[in-house]
Amino acid sequence: MITLMTDFGLDDVYVAVMKGVISGIAPGAAFVDLCHAVAPQDIRGAAFRLWMAVPYFPAHTVHLVVVDPGVGTSRRAIAARTSQGIFVGPDNGVFSYVWAESSPRQVVELENPRYHLPGMSTTFHGRDIFSPAAAHVAVGVDLGALGPEVTDPVGLPLPSLELTACQIAGEVLYVDRFGNAITSIGRLTWDRDTLLLEGAFGGCGRARFRASGVQVVAGRRQVYGIHGAYGEVSVGTALALVGSSGLLELAVSQGHGAQALDLQVGDPVMVVGDIEVEL
Amino acid sequence: MITLMTDFGLDDVYVAVMKGVISGIAPGAAFVDLCHAVAPQDIRGAAFRLWMAVPYFPAHTVHLVVVDPGVGTSRRAIAARTSQGIFVGPDNGVFSYVWAESSPRQVVELENPRYHLPGMSTTFHGRDIFSPAAAHVAVGVDLGALGPEVTDPVGLPLPSLELTACQIAGEVLYVDRFGNAITSIGRLTWDRDTLLLEGAFGGCGRARFRASGVQVVAGRRQVYGIHGAYGEVSVGTALALVGSSGLLELAVSQGHGAQALDLQVGDPVMVVGDIEVEL
Amino acid sequence: MITLMTDFGLDDVYVAVMKGVISGIAPGAAFVDLCHAVAPQDIRGAAFRLWMAVPYFPAHTVHLVVVDPGVGTSRRAIAARTSQGIFVGPDNGVFSYVWAESSPRQVVELENPRYHLPGMSTTFHGRDIFSPAAAHVAVGVDLGALGPEVTDPVGLPLPSLELTACQIAGEVLYVDRFGNAITSIGRLTWDRDTLLLEGAFGGCGRARFRASGVQVVAGRRQVYGIHGAYGEVSVGTALALVGSSGLLELAVSQGHGAQALDLQVGDPVMVVGDIEVEL
Repeated sequence: MITLMTDFGLDDVYVAVMKGVISGIAPGAAFVDLCHAVAPQDIRGAAFRLWMAVPYFPAHTVHLVVVDPGVGTSRRAIAARTSQGIFVGPDNGVFSYVWAESSPRQVVELENPRYHLPGMSTTFHGRDIFSPAAAHVAVGVDLGALGPEVTDPVGLPLPSLELTACQIAGEVLYVDRFGNAITSIGRLTWDRDTLLLEGAFGGCGRARFRASGVQVVAGRRQVYGIHGAYGEVSVGTALALVGSSGLLELAVSQGHGAQALDLQVGDPVMVVGDIEVEL
Repeated sequence: MITLMTDFGLDDVYVAVMKGVISGIAPGAAFVDLCHAVAPQDIRGAAFRLWMAVPYFPAHTVHLVVVDPGVGTSRRAIAARTSQGIFVGPDNGVFSYVWAESSPRQVVELENPRYHLPGMSTTFHGRDIFSPAAAHVAVGVDLGALGPEVTDPVGLPLPSLELTACQIAGEVLYVDRFGNAITSIGRLTWDRDTLLLEGAFGGCGRARFRASGVQVVAGRRQVYGIHGAYGEVSVGTALALVGSSGLLELAVSQGHGAQALDLQVGDPVMVVGDIEVEL
Repeated sequence: MITLMTDFGLDDVYVAVMKGVISGIAPGAAFVDLCHAVAPQDIRGAAFRLWMAVPYFPAHTVHLVVVDPGVGTSRRAIAARTSQGIFVGPDNGVFSYVWAESSPRQVVELENPRYHLPGMSTTFHGRDIFSPAAAHVAVGVDLGALGPEVTDPVGLPLPSLELTACQIAGEVLYVDRFGNAITSIGRLTWDRDTLLLEGAFGGCGRARFRASGVQVVAGRRQVYGIHGAYGEVSVGTALALVGSSGLLELAVSQGHGAQALDLQVGDPVMVVGDIEVEL
């Protein structure tokens, strides 16, 4: 199985061309589109989506990502293996959120022209380099055959998360279709009415607090307590809750949380109250 | 084969996550996306789309629907089998249009935690309950293993259709991408220049009339006669015709019928004229 | 493998219905969506997308295209075989850009009712005629069984390209998601700093020129030289470059070229300078 994530959208045939190339090399490959609506050149948006999706795929899956503002420059093309899957794409940090939780055992640069498409362009490496690499790996070619080892893959700054005795500080990472503003404050799990925070994205530090004993300050607004489900408040009410990936979300029940709370990616979010921190 | 319909859109990775979960349980499952552009929480829009699509799929298909405003509340999660396929989703009526024509032989509640994803969330049952259920059913798990029998699945009010000696009254059910306003007046079949109406959505009552001998009144507009194809009128002209599912549609040839005729879902539509009704 | 291209969009279930029909006839068929965002009834937009995609698919692929303003009229439904694949769709010229480069060995009209869906509509031949034909061909039915030979398939005018001693004249064919304005001036290949033009779309005539020795005039703007990659100019700068299909493109580095240069499909584009033409 090969997943594909790009910023190509679905108005053009670029995604289909990649699938055609892969099918020529790996007949019978099964495709799952992760997302093609990444904003053009939004590496962080792609990194976060990948972080959300990868844990739910079988570990033999090949994840192909083409969000590649540096195409045609000297940025490297890479493939890597972790315990969660195989990753193919540009070396621009797009994999770094996933790798913060499961670091790569092997990273290689896709330099071997034997595994490029003949007649390579300078503008569409998704077709000419990344798709052939993903297909060859899917049919069993060893990563080492694709090119030399890379020891210093590019990393993005990880999502911010700071724990102090009375406060957890993070940021809005992503706004989804429903308007839920998903933050870097996680991974949260319930222990009855108490929440345990473990530090997502490989973050260190743990914390514990009563869900009803905190305020969440997001932009210029604050809400009281952290809920388990949208249905716990009345329709139209703003709430903080633990989302499906274990991250704190700001939402409005059956409404658009980010609009109602005027939140954008990058905005600071704080949980304030009686918080017990273990560093 | 597993079809998926959600109101998740394609900007996020939620649909992909469901496919990842399914692939882990049912390797080699083939996916067909029915539609992910259902308006958020529009159960009727999902019910109608499902009604249009299901008859064209093989009867062993698993249809997975996640349009689920009640997620996290006490609404039941169900799976069911009819002569047309297997259906998995929330018990909110989304299957009731399909089931009006082919009623379920067995409906069960997805209560058995053995078939849930570990670490279940309260906000994404599409991932945690419905996808695992669909996958397990696809690999041969018996419906009865998933949970106890349900005898009273929730039903939506069926699309309105009333027949009288001089009039057939229905409503606009759906506006498609081309602007065709599809109504509840059907199922219509041609017998030369005469139309036979059988009552779609399990409706009783039959009628017969000459296609050229009626007026169709839709909102504040009326058109004369019912046509067989867009090409029978000149470009830009409003017409009523029998659509591809056998329902009466209002359209404008190479234009946007619903806009031109100012029609919205729920608006009344009548066929008036010399109509022979059998009840 | 079966690819699908339509102007149906993804808001409705029409594409899914086609896949359901195909799956009933050709179980295990693998689908690749070429594009469903073709503007309604934009035959040229579909023809160009197909031209871009087809060379990258295995030659046994069945390409199913439903951009069909003439549905329900007397336009023919056809299937054809070329060295690049099998093509199924309306006889309205949608295949003519592809066929200009690889002409069909056999074209047939889809007249044999044995290969139509029972209860055929007049408005959805994608479901009733084209999908069954594609499925039957995919499972090995001979083209000749589908209907009688067609010797005069409809052709679109080919994209304009004129070569003279000091000028290459073409037109904007397509604007992609990134705003790149793709022109008919191609197919271009690099020989160090020199470009060789071969005439795409079956065009005759060849030319050669130094990339830095020409001006490109597009609409009311001109740019100097032709580049190999977006990264060769600074962000926000307009440039002409050789795109991934070997066609001249007008772009703005990390911007929207067509908007910045006020270019639309059909606008003339000229390459002016010291050009060596072989006719």
